[in-house]
Amino acid sequence: MKPGRVILMGAGPGDLDLLTRKAVRALLAADVLLLDELVCADLVELAPRARVMRVGKRGGCRSTPQDFIQRLMRRYALQGKTVVRVKGGEALLFGRAGEEIAFLEAAGIEVELVNGISAGLAAATSLGISLTHRGHCDGVSFVTAHTHDGTGPDWAALAKSRTTLVIYMGMQRIEAVCAALLAHLPGGTPAAVVQWASTPREARLVTRLDTLAGAAREAGMASPAVILVGDAIGQARRRSTAGAEPAQRVLGAA
Amino acid sequence: MKPGRVILMGAGPGDLDLLTRKAVRALLAADVLLLDELVCADLVELAPRARVMRVGKRGGCRSTPQDFIQRLMRRYALQGKTVVRVKGGEALLFGRAGEEIAFLEAAGIEVELVNGISAGLAAATSLGISLTHRGHCDGVSFVTAHTHDGTGPDWAALAKSRTTLVIYMGMQRIEAVCAALLAHLPGGTPAAVVQWASTPREARLVTRLDTLAGAAREAGMASPAVILVGDAIGQARRRSTAGAEPAQRVLGAA
Repeated sequence: MKPGRVILMGAGPGDLDLLTRKAVRALLAADVLLLDELVCADLVELAPRARVMRVGKRGGCRSTPQDFIQRLMRRYALQGKTVVRVKGGEALLFGRAGEEIAFLEAAGIEVELVNGISAGLAAATSLGISLTHRGHCDGVSFVTAHTHDGTGPDWAALAKSRTTLVIYMGMQRIEAVCAALLAHLPGGTPAAVVQWASTPREARLVTRLDTLAGAAREAGMASPAVILVGDAIGQARRRSTAGAEPAQRVLGAA
Repeated sequence: MKPGRVILMGAGPGDLDLLTRKAVRALLAADVLLLDELVCADLVELAPRARVMRVGKRGGCRSTPQDFIQRLMRRYALQGKTVVRVKGGEALLFGRAGEEIAFLEAAGIEVELVNGISAGLAAATSLGISLTHRGHCDGVSFVTAHTHDGTGPDWAALAKSRTTLVIYMGMQRIEAVCAALLAHLPGGTPAAVVQWASTPREARLVTRLDTLAGAAREAGMASPAVILVGDAIGQARRRSTAGAEPAQRVLGAA
């Protein structure tokens, strides 16, 4: 029997036009499709041959344990199938790809990786800004607010790093995230939340760090969203009235 | 006259299969194509209607000044053309998109942004690793070694940030970069260089921080390449002998 393989693929932030050509080919080749919860439902139409399985892991009792997902991928690959594991955003940023690669390679299964557009970069497009504007910063950090050990990242070091901060999985604790950063950054530091970046449900909030959490709660913003903090975000202000942007979706502006 | 527009587009790291579907459509619509030096030459075949202009900015006397590029975009857009400015990697990471957006919007020109796959993420694919493996770090920082003020980024803060470091524009000063990081990180910290990620010329070096600079020089590695440092890079070791990978391109392994 021809050996199977697993393709770990980033599907981008939602807009299917942000799929890469390589991702589209992977979908066409799929025998089995394992879909994360946040992946756009219409994506299955691009995988006409595939048996589709939803393996969302977000809260609640219907979540799928990580080890079950890994065993599922292994089982189908060992049956000779092409298994495509579709993750929201970029497969290699957050989302447990590291564990999955290690598990599958230990089982002797070929793993292919296909990059995607991460939600933080789609958020930058939504805001109309470079995340690394050289007049404002030396780069960008993508961090999770939901660290493995539960203590959160080293906000002091991140605040000092002169990078734009793009914070994933932070909406449930946005007050704590902002409070932690306010211990190290001025209250007037430009800050934003972008929810459902790249999709028709996209919403943006652009304000300053000391009012971000309250304004985001008031506007009803929640997951899936990224929080962006840093001087480079200040460039977003001019976008709130730019003609090319749907201004009614800008929930606030500094 | 119908107003023109400028599309700032990330072309990805080299492999044209990493173009997004949105980028492919932008190329089809292009009247004028402004190409950065590192963009794959075959890309022009995807823009059959376009007048192609090369506006590389890398060293030497043939480089194109930034303000000339900006005026060129403005001129063609004001003539009603669809101008596609093609940048290597991701348009919104490094590469002066911030200045270009500000300049064009000040001239009343509509700007569209199209995301791409950054070289650092293609390097992670090459190494077969997640850049944010939660057992090893809290995220990833993309920084330039070539900061605006010439002093370099705050290596102390970055080293303390518990993020994987992906360093752009660092090959000309790799010794200084590694020396600066060694003041704050153990010599045994996993480190790598990936050159020409995603292309047939791709080369990888996986080693430790204290031997990285010497090994990279010895192997003749130079721009375009990214430097990766952090515990998550240690996951790359198993890939140096993985069947799916062209092992002969792995120049070294820890």
